[in-house]
Amino acid sequence: MNSELKKIDICLSPAYYNKDNYSDNIVVVIDIVRASTTICVAFDNGATEIIPVRSVDEALLYKLKGYLVSGERNGFKVEGFDMGNSPFEYSKDKVNGKKIAFTTTNGTQALTAANETKSTLIGSFINYDIIFNWLSNQNTDILLFCSGVENAIAIEDVLFAGKLAQGLINTGDFFYKGDVVPVATTLFESAKDNLFEFVMMNSVRLNKRRDFFEQDIRFCLSDNQVKVIPQMLDGRLLKKKD
Amino acid sequence: MNSELKKIDICLSPAYYNKDNYSDNIVVVIDIVRASTTICVAFDNGATEIIPVRSVDEALLYKLKGYLVSGERNGFKVEGFDMGNSPFEYSKDKVNGKKIAFTTTNGTQALTAANETKSTLIGSFINYDIIFNWLSNQNTDILLFCSGVENAIAIEDVLFAGKLAQGLINTGDFFYKGDVVPVATTLFESAKDNLFEFVMMNSVRLNKRRDFFEQDIRFCLSDNQVKVIPQMLDGRLLKKKD
Repeated sequence: MNSELKKIDICLSPAYYNKDNYSDNIVVVIDIVRASTTICVAFDNGATEIIPVRSVDEALLYKLKGYLVSGERNGFKVEGFDMGNSPFEYSKDKVNGKKIAFTTTNGTQALTAANETKSTLIGSFINYDIIFNWLSNQNTDILLFCSGVENAIAIEDVLFAGKLAQGLINTGDFFYKGDVVPVATTLFESAKDNLFEFVMMNSVRLNKRRDFFEQDIRFCLSDNQVKVIPQMLDGRLLKKKD
Repeated sequence: MNSELKKIDICLSPAYYNKDNYSDNIVVVIDIVRASTTICVAFDNGATEIIPVRSVDEALLYKLKGYLVSGERNGFKVEGFDMGNSPFEYSKDKVNGKKIAFTTTNGTQALTAANETKSTLIGSFINYDIIFNWLSNQNTDILLFCSGVENAIAIEDVLFAGKLAQGLINTGDFFYKGDVVPVATTLFESAKDNLFEFVMMNSVRLNKRRDFFEQDIRFCLSDNQVKVIPQMLDGRLLKKKD
């Protein structure tokens, strides 16, 4: 418990981000389907470093330096890459002890935008417990930064932001000001009994991808828990030390 | 019933508006607490024209031309104005047969931004029935444009957008693409049994104003129905003819 209340806020997509308001915040970058989830799995399976890069060409340059190269464009693995963006591709035998250069259509934009803040972490449903526990013990305002999709809202990111905001507010140590936090917590409350069905019923975008990605989407929305918090340091993601 | 499905979309605040995407849309501007509601009341009570103006000085110039001058800054009536922004100030004996120059902190911004579209209307809970009926018979895509507050989200605007989107989708004549529509319809579904209590519990901003504006806020969220659709034509609002 801290004596002073800390502020929690949510940014719904990079298009709405104003870095001046959050430079002294801890920022949790959220890209549930699938970058956040995949990054958590990679570290849980022993990856030592992940460099988010903007372009496919930049990623391929890292291949020459011994990195695994991974990511997607429009959901699908890029030719010449070692892995796509499915969490199931980041198995222990593939990533343990390895460095990875990683690029996605939407995920790297929020990460790059949030890079000038006090601390930038990756949040997902699958590392909820550990990131919630760590955040609730910090004496700092927190921004939950949704990656969205093509500068619009991604409902699964808002759902996770709603879950995390609700959890933090329920500790009694956090307050919010704007209306975006209650929009997200109310959305999560409506959806929490069956996240997968809710998302399939409501998101045209995710429903269209069901045929290709159902197993991934189910995993990204699941309660499976990994014990890692990816943290951005000098342009690279590392597994946060306790 | 129209044979071709029409698209419905929601813009959460003027900061997120991209006019290029909506130039051929009917746009419904929403500023529930209180501009949308007040404008509907004014026309219902016989006002003949409302000019939305950006500044207090511009409004006062219209006073010299015989207009009533009205509006607010930070919620309160401006000195020298005939009325503030409370719907209860726009009674028949005050506004019948009158022209009004009107300025508000947030409401005029969305109106001005949406001025280049096919048709711009004002929507509020109190003219829901008539605007829903009219919209459901048009063969045009529709944007629900929330005025928000200081470029952020206003929960009451999102609730109304959710109600209207849900109603239109339920006719079977409309579809949506992005995730913002289901976020708004889910929010409305959670709140609809008691909009006032929901808003008071969730919006710090509106709760703070309860002491001054409770009667206004209750009215703005009420089922009282007026039979007018305000429409923007050449920079002025007029009562839409059938």
